[in-house]
Amino acid sequence: MRHNDHLEQWDRDNFFHPSTHLAEFARGNLPHRVITGGSDCHIEDRDGNRLLDAFAGLYCVNVGYGRPEIADAIADQAKELAYYHSYVGHGTEASITLAKMVLDRAPDHMSKVYFGLSGSDANETNIKLIWYYNNILGRPEKKKIISRWRGYHGSGLMTGSLTGLELFHKKFDLPLAQVLHTEAPYYFRRADQNQTEAEFVAHCVAELEEMIDREGADTIAAFIGEPVLGTGGIVPPPAGYWPAIQAVLDKHDILLVADEVVTGFGRLGSMFGSDHYGMRPDLITIAKGLTSAYAPLSGSIVSDKMWTVLERGTDENGPIGHGWTYSAHPIGAAAGVANLQLIDTLGLIENAGSVGTYLNTTMQDALADHPNVGDIRGEGMLCAVEFMADKEKGTFFDASDKIGPQIAGKLLEQDKVIARAMPQGDILGFAPPFCLTRAEADQVVAATLRAVTSILG
Amino acid sequence: MRHNDHLEQWDRDNFFHPSTHLAEFARGNLPHRVITGGSDCHIEDRDGNRLLDAFAGLYCVNVGYGRPEIADAIADQAKELAYYHSYVGHGTEASITLAKMVLDRAPDHMSKVYFGLSGSDANETNIKLIWYYNNILGRPEKKKIISRWRGYHGSGLMTGSLTGLELFHKKFDLPLAQVLHTEAPYYFRRADQNQTEAEFVAHCVAELEEMIDREGADTIAAFIGEPVLGTGGIVPPPAGYWPAIQAVLDKHDILLVADEVVTGFGRLGSMFGSDHYGMRPDLITIAKGLTSAYAPLSGSIVSDKMWTVLERGTDENGPIGHGWTYSAHPIGAAAGVANLQLIDTLGLIENAGSVGTYLNTTMQDALADHPNVGDIRGEGMLCAVEFMADKEKGTFFDASDKIGPQIAGKLLEQDKVIARAMPQGDILGFAPPFCLTRAEADQVVAATLRAVTSILG
Repeated sequence: MRHNDHLEQWDRDNFFHPSTHLAEFARGNLPHRVITGGSDCHIEDRDGNRLLDAFAGLYCVNVGYGRPEIADAIADQAKELAYYHSYVGHGTEASITLAKMVLDRAPDHMSKVYFGLSGSDANETNIKLIWYYNNILGRPEKKKIISRWRGYHGSGLMTGSLTGLELFHKKFDLPLAQVLHTEAPYYFRRADQNQTEAEFVAHCVAELEEMIDREGADTIAAFIGEPVLGTGGIVPPPAGYWPAIQAVLDKHDILLVADEVVTGFGRLGSMFGSDHYGMRPDLITIAKGLTSAYAPLSGSIVSDKMWTVLERGTDENGPIGHGWTYSAHPIGAAAGVANLQLIDTLGLIENAGSVGTYLNTTMQDALADHPNVGDIRGEGMLCAVEFMADKEKGTFFDASDKIGPQIAGKLLEQDKVIARAMPQGDILGFAPPFCLTRAEADQVVAATLRAVTSILG
Repeated sequence: MRHNDHLEQWDRDNFFHPSTHLAEFARGNLPHRVITGGSDCHIEDRDGNRLLDAFAGLYCVNVGYGRPEIADAIADQAKELAYYHSYVGHGTEASITLAKMVLDRAPDHMSKVYFGLSGSDANETNIKLIWYYNNILGRPEKKKIISRWRGYHGSGLMTGSLTGLELFHKKFDLPLAQVLHTEAPYYFRRADQNQTEAEFVAHCVAELEEMIDREGADTIAAFIGEPVLGTGGIVPPPAGYWPAIQAVLDKHDILLVADEVVTGFGRLGSMFGSDHYGMRPDLITIAKGLTSAYAPLSGSIVSDKMWTVLERGTDENGPIGHGWTYSAHPIGAAAGVANLQLIDTLGLIENAGSVGTYLNTTMQDALADHPNVGDIRGEGMLCAVEFMADKEKGTFFDASDKIGPQIAGKLLEQDKVIARAMPQGDILGFAPPFCLTRAEADQVVAATLRAVTSILG
């Protein structure tokens, strides 16, 4: 297939790409890019370009590209048994082993893992389990889910409703009922710029308390949040945020779902963001880092507290009516086992912590003084640069100027470095593979400075 | 890992299996089964059992187990490039080629394919596209989706709502708003047993018309149905059903979604059920047969009529806010290309038609006269046997007697044949791989007769 001259036409005629301007792509006015290979932090395309992927796909290829250990595990599993279902107590050695490995790494109070395919379907599972839980406990009214503006929890109907970004709601009639949004812990964009960090946390907590009082705690089942806001702008929480939120939730018997699709398995330099920030979740959503995207696999890790009630539910009602045909798919499970082993063997979580800190520090040093750079923030192997029209006056660019996308485009064109223009606001996001070297971090920072200077002067 | 003595304990302690009695499994009162390999229509477990899988996993391993052509394609792709995303015009040779192959096989009026992971997420995509479509057309009220009782369209919140089976609703607060259920075209269980097939079709059409009148056609966006009801009992439609339904939908400008997760790519002995029954869908849901389950992959095939409006939507609103990280995953795409090629090369659709007919005929010959066998029905490589307490009196067994599960259990225990007790009613379902031989069909029928006789006399 490598030299198939028809590939571009086939692509434009047949392929409905996600998150794409469909008309412009079909007309031929947007690039068609065929990716053919990769190694470590680099990908290669069919035109012979080698690109430094400082976003690890969609912050998912955590161990880097081209790892033979995972490819071999996938190949062996495909030859041995590509598929059997996991319903009614069926499993494979890989899926059972992975369940054990996930629980060994999860916080101590977690009990079981349900395997799905994507972060979106894992959050669907979570909502189903939360509703079931409160039905078994005889609290049929306790069902609403609180999410945060700027949170990202999926692209489905209910999971896109949890997501608090306009792009995912507009023209889709979302959010659906049962989902409420509270303020994002987005310190940099807080309305009152004179608030201290602690005052801003108190404000977020007060907003949440007010929402709970208004709706009635007996109508609210759960609160969902990413330890670090991801697609909403890569925003680590202000100091003390999670313990303060956790206290409110505990007081009102509201479950906490930690959406660790981005942060799980090492991106913050620690195994889970829940440990990192002192969250005590009842459910943990996992996906990307579980397999480093080598095969689709997600999971919902369920706490002891919830599991006891789920068991009671099946004693009272029989088998639970929930399952995906591809739950715990053998190929995904084999990839997951090899991926988690590789992360340990290569010490990649430590590297994510140390080189991530280096990336954030050098980005600060190079760009903090630029008149259009409003904020540089990050944690572990996550970093964001947010642009402003005028830092002194506190004004932002108009969205139609597409400053973020312009800078990301220049970065790619000029230095073959991939970063991501986050969908809301002019924010350039970086989430490299954990194997990033200091030399590559230097390269990313230098290229970013060049791109920013090219576009903004 | 093969001789890991801890595997059972790890499984019971850590693994949340789908559709399982959670408490009984955790206590050790339900079997723990580790599947280790397979070839053609057989799987093997860790205890050395070789089982004839007459349900092809969950009617998905259409080409049969152990196909080196697909395993090699997966292995090659894993080594070359296990993952890159497909957002904003990115793709791989496999994903673009597969898009072309899908459209080559789909009805002529279809335009593009969006790739997801599971049938459930493809139906989520479908609902999003349907709502978007009517918003772009300036019909914000035209949003309700009509499904059928006994339909199966997924296990998520909205897709589980489309599903019309009690097991998937109970204790989960489903169905959600926006979903209506109309009568299943379940001729055998129709209320008035004196109706002819044509009268029953007229009755189903009248029920639908009445629902549309009651709700208002301007509030109803789409109708979703499986060409042959699957999990709801394996029920082919009565003659003339789909053309009659299609005429009603056309009259009221209601879109048709053909959920071909089970029927797509050959199970009825034809490429799609839509062709088989004269449906003209606006969206086709595909999953299982697309890769024969060797890797997770699903799709929503979009018609020309809808695609034109989606393009207009992105011209007016910019890129579409919908995407899964693992959309068009390279491993799934590679499996899909190899799978569709293999189906062609081996003539498996023809085999599904001819051996499927043979299976249905021999099942009729062997079991139709049994006093507890009320109905034997099927199409292509689908077959169901429905049991009754008393055929003469028209009475059914009580659900708590679990006659279906008892027979399925006996079939496995006595002759190592896997069939599936369908979740609602005492129905034994068969959906073997397309490579089933006539000798294997004979074996399945003989074993079924033995199991039925063992349980019911």
